This record gives sequence, structure tokens and C-alpha cells, in this order.
Amino acid sequence: MYRKLVENSGAEAVLITDPVNMRYYSGFAGGEGAVYLSKNRQVLITDSRYTEAAAKESSFEVIEEGLSHKRTEILAECLEKDGAASLAYEDQSMTCSEFFRLQEALPQVKEWVRLKSTADDLRRIKTPEEIKNIAAAAAIADKAFSEMMKILKVGMTEKEAAAQLEFLMKKFGADGTSFDTIFASGIHSSMPHAVPTDKKIEEGDFVTMDFGCKVNGYCSDMTRTVVMGKATDKQKEVYNTVLEANERAMAQVKAGVVGKDIDAIARDYIKEAGYGEYFGHGLGHSVGLYIHENPRFSPSEDSVIEANVTETVEPGIYIPGWGGVRIEDLIVVKEDGYELLSHSPKQLIEL
Amino acid sequence: MYRKLVENSGAEAVLITDPVNMRYYSGFAGGEGAVYLSKNRQVLITDSRYTEAAAKESSFEVIEEGLSHKRTEILAECLEKDGAASLAYEDQSMTCSEFFRLQEALPQVKEWVRLKSTADDLRRIKTPEEIKNIAAAAAIADKAFSEMMKILKVGMTEKEAAAQLEFLMKKFGADGTSFDTIFASGIHSSMPHAVPTDKKIEEGDFVTMDFGCKVNGYCSDMTRTVVMGKATDKQKEVYNTVLEANERAMAQVKAGVVGKDIDAIARDYIKEAGYGEYFGHGLGHSVGLYIHENPRFSPSEDSVIEANVTETVEPGIYIPGWGGVRIEDLIVVKEDGYELLSHSPKQLIEL
Repeated sequence: MYRKLVENSGAEAVLITDPVNMRYYSGFAGGEGAVYLSKNRQVLITDSRYTEAAAKESSFEVIEEGLSHKRTEILAECLEKDGAASLAYEDQSMTCSEFFRLQEALPQVKEWVRLKSTADDLRRIKTPEEIKNIAAAAAIADKAFSEMMKILKVGMTEKEAAAQLEFLMKKFGADGTSFDTIFASGIHSSMPHAVPTDKKIEEGDFVTMDFGCKVNGYCSDMTRTVVMGKATDKQKEVYNTVLEANERAMAQVKAGVVGKDIDAIARDYIKEAGYGEYFGHGLGHSVGLYIHENPRFSPSEDSVIEANVTETVEPGIYIPGWGGVRIEDLIVVKEDGYELLSHSPKQLIEL
Repeated sequence: MYRKLVENSGAEAVLITDPVNMRYYSGFAGGEGAVYLSKNRQVLITDSRYTEAAAKESSFEVIEEGLSHKRTEILAECLEKDGAASLAYEDQSMTCSEFFRLQEALPQVKEWVRLKSTADDLRRIKTPEEIKNIAAAAAIADKAFSEMMKILKVGMTEKEAAAQLEFLMKKFGADGTSFDTIFASGIHSSMPHAVPTDKKIEEGDFVTMDFGCKVNGYCSDMTRTVVMGKATDKQKEVYNTVLEANERAMAQVKAGVVGKDIDAIARDYIKEAGYGEYFGHGLGHSVGLYIHENPRFSPSEDSVIEANVTETVEPGIYIPGWGGVRIEDLIVVKEDGYELLSHSPKQLIEL
């Protein structure tokens, strides 16, 4: 894929500094260093703490950086060998001060080319190996959810419950969480991005859990909403509206659909049910080495979704002062439909 | 403090975009938005999700950004009211693409001034309120360590033990961890930044735990090393060398010392004991809203350490293929000495 990146970059050479892209293109997971790519060479620059691991993980030439052989010196040597005068860089993640430092140290670069989203775009379609890792992370999250259903009780605080769920994912083998767990109960569940608080979980509360973990750097993402005790008719109605929106949207997924069309299926259904004003976010996003990747299922997504793209499908209804429901699945788009990676039950659980 | 920031910036107005600095100067903890500061006005720009919280948390004028009133339009209005033609920005955290976007949208800015570390430098000396938060985080870490000593057993994996320790900090009220917990056993303890693995903790292992948590955004940081079972003479010797280095360095701390001099006390002691080649990192760093702040206790720190600066004191000896020890305390520098924030026992614990 790194050859394609050089081709698409619009420059003679490419500098990769984002840890996730470094991992994707070179195989090196250490996160510290930089990658230089051109038609002629693939160089992984890292310091003495990581050179041994880098040589194992990557097929690239590994050059050690340090006080006696600085990164900019190594880059200058590579550029000279290649006779390259244009260098593409990751302007969307590189800080200004780092860029100015490079500009000053590498006057031989006549043209600095902004890579924009080029390095990310090539990561849209997932390989079988990547899907395996995402599926493994999703399976751990499923297992943790199942265990959590035995533990979750009225009287626990949201913070305590969130900590417990994160502990379970790590216990079951996750390398870490893929984002801060959302654990929102009662009226807090009307906030899509609620942060867990010291509020105790009460009888009658909707409890929304949005969580995921990482395996080999790859993220999972899932949301389930349960009710503490018997659900009221209103709770059932809102829940089933969200569930139906989730299932209707998924049923139409296959390679070739346009992102905004899938979003519209769920959005129109919720609107027709009378809850349109309570669903304010996009329907879904892709997931990979980052928790939020492109393409999206959203009203502004005009791109065609190809096979082996991952997506979340996460409609919600959030009624201020009352509560909310979100149900989120993680899928891989296939030629004729999709493969489901999140297998936790979706019928309303009354705890 | 925000007035001082404008004064020190070298520009007529200052744009703050780093979430931590936004919180520090405005009081707003939400993390999304930007702050505009000049002699005449203090403006907090954030979106509709946060305007209510922002108005409560900050004394600044809150202006809502959104599709109909973009951040750059709000900034343009502020600059115009102030008649300002120079704007300082956080070049050390702002991405290139964000900077280019601002430059294009705000042609009225004739001079873009790099703020460099100015906004961070003003955060060096901690207020009593900040110290209270850091102390609260350190107290939670102490409590979690004490509980962990009852749970830690031969046969647990490093990952499981790390997850347990993180769970305990959250259970005891932390908002989150301040960095990924290090839990290194046996030969892994010779790596200062070891990532927890599936390795089981074995009889005879040194186990190094480096961990911390957050309270109201403020971090704590502590390291303890214990031994599983009876310590060997060699383990005792290495442990006590590190402990003595830690205590000798701390004993000399008071306002007015130079960072590198405190580092040298610990470093020289370890060198004299014959382990000089096995202590490769700096002795300590300041802690606040970020886990690593300036000034440092390190061989290259020439600055004078003032009263109410926080510091870690964390000497270590790391012997490849054998194991290692690090003991880290968290202190606040005072006029006549220091105040200790980490109270966990430091005599070698044999579990």
C-alpha cells in the first residue's frame, strides 16, 4: 500500500509522522519515529528504545535516530540519495512548530506538499487481517457486555459501572479501550456523549453503554441501552423505534450504496415515528486503527461505500429531561450485504 | 493569569486552542472550542453542546459557534472590535492544516505570532486549588495501591493486574487515569516504559507499578516496586540503592534549587553504587493538567525551581535481562523543603 501512497501523494517523497499511519504503512507498532517513502526506498526512523522491535515488525530499512544522527539529518540523506526536491507531509496531524523546524532543517525541499487525507483514504478498505483484529475486539466487548449484565445493579454509580466494564474488556484480553466509555443513566441518557458521573443508577432508568476496546491497535465500537426494572410503555416505544431504525438501515447495506442513503433510511423512519428532532447525529462511521474513520453513514456522505469497509449503525432518540436510547452495531460491508461483528442481544433487556 | 498571557504573547490578541490551556485560562473544562484574549476582551467560543456548561464554568463572554456563525467569523469580529492586526497562536499544538485554514480565513491578521511555550510556562507555579486537586488524585492512587497489595498474586497477568489497578482508582473516585498504567514484572521491569503483557507474574519477580489518575483534570503520578516472595540479597541491594537515591534527592529540595542539581544528587549516588549505566532517564518532571510538564529534574534543566512547583522524584536502576526498580514520589516544592503528596510505603514490600 505504501507504493500507492507515494503515487497518490503528488510529491517525490512522503514523510509519515502520525503513529497510526506509521503502523499501517510500515508494520511498526511502537508509535515513536517517522517513515520516509519514495519510489526507491522505504525507511523507518526510530530511536534506540525501538530499533529492535522495529526491525522485527517492519520490512522497511530501519535507521536509528538520536543525538548523533538526528531525524532531519537522516531525512536529508534520504532526499539526497533520491534526488528529491518535493516532500509530502501529514499537515492534518503535524503541529506547526514541527513543520517550521523541518522547513528550516531541510532547505533542499523546494516544495512541501500537503498530504491532506491521502494517507487515511488508503486505509478505508480493510484487509482480512484488519477485519480479524476488529472482530476480535468486538468479540471481547460482547463478552464484557454479557458479564456486565450480571453485575449491573441499581445503586452503582455511573463511574463505577463504566470502570467495571472497562476492567472486563481488559480482563478478557483487550490491549485497552478504544475511547472513554459512555455510561449514562436516567436523564443523562439523553446526552449522546455523556461522561460517567457519580450519579447512582436508579430503578426505572434507561442505561446507555457505548464502549469498545483495542486488539493489535484495531478498535471496536458498540452501544446497548437497557432498562433497570420493568420498562414503561413509553420506554418500549422509544426503544423499539430505535431498534427498527437500526435494523431497517442495516438491511439495505451492501457494497455500492451511498453513505447518505443508508443514513436517510434510519433518519426517515425516526422522523415518521415522530422523534425526528431527537436524533441529531450521523448514523455511523467507519472504524479501524482510529475509532472514527471515513466513510460515514451521514447526511453529508456522498461517497460510495465499498466492500470490506467497516461501519457502525447507531441511530438514537434523545429526549431532554426524559432520557434516551442508542443501539449501535458494528458491521463489515460485503458485496451482497454485511457481516455483523457485534453479537450482543438487541431485544430490550429489563434488569 | 490570562492578562499576563496577553502581555507575554508579543501580539495584540491571543488564540488558545489547546484544551488544557483553554481550561486553565478560561475555567471551561469541556475541551471543545477556542479562547480569544486581548487587553479588552476575553471570549470563549464553543458549540451548542457546551454553551450552557461554559457559561457556568467561565467568567469569559461565551459566544456560540456553529454553521451559521463560524469560529473564524467570530474571531474576525473580535479582531475588528479590537483593531488588532497581530494574533498569537499555539504553534506547538495547532496542526498545520488548522493554521492554514485560519490564515486563509483571517487575512486581516498581518502578523501571526508563534506562542511557543508561553501559555504553558505560566502554568508552572500551581495555585492552592490546583495543588488540592493533584493531592486528591495522589490520595486516590495511594488508596488503590494499598488495596492492590491485597489483590496482587503470583499467576495474574500483567494486563489483568494493570486493569485491576486502574479499576480501583476509578472506583475510589478518579475521573480517569492520567496515563496508561505500567505494570512490569520480572525481566520486563528492566524496561522503564514497559507495556503490560500477557506474561504471568511469577514467584521472585520484581513488579514495578507506575500509575496515576485525574481529579478535576489534574494528574497524579507514582511508582512503587515490590517483590513476589522473599527478596534476594541482590534485589535488596538494588532496591535500597534506588530508595536511598530517591530520599537523598528529596532531602535537598526547596525553592531556589536548580533542576539539574537535584537530578545530580540521585544520579551521582547511583553511579557511586556502581549502577550508573542503568539509570538512563531524568529524575523527575512537573505534573499538572498534563502528566509531563516543566520544569524537570534532569541533567539539562538549568532553570531555578520555585515554590509551589510540583515535581516527581523517580530514580531507577534497570538491568537488562535481570529486572529493575523505580521508586517515584510526587512532591510540591516549598520555601523550606517540600510537601509529600504520595504517601504509600517505600520500604521493600515482599508479597
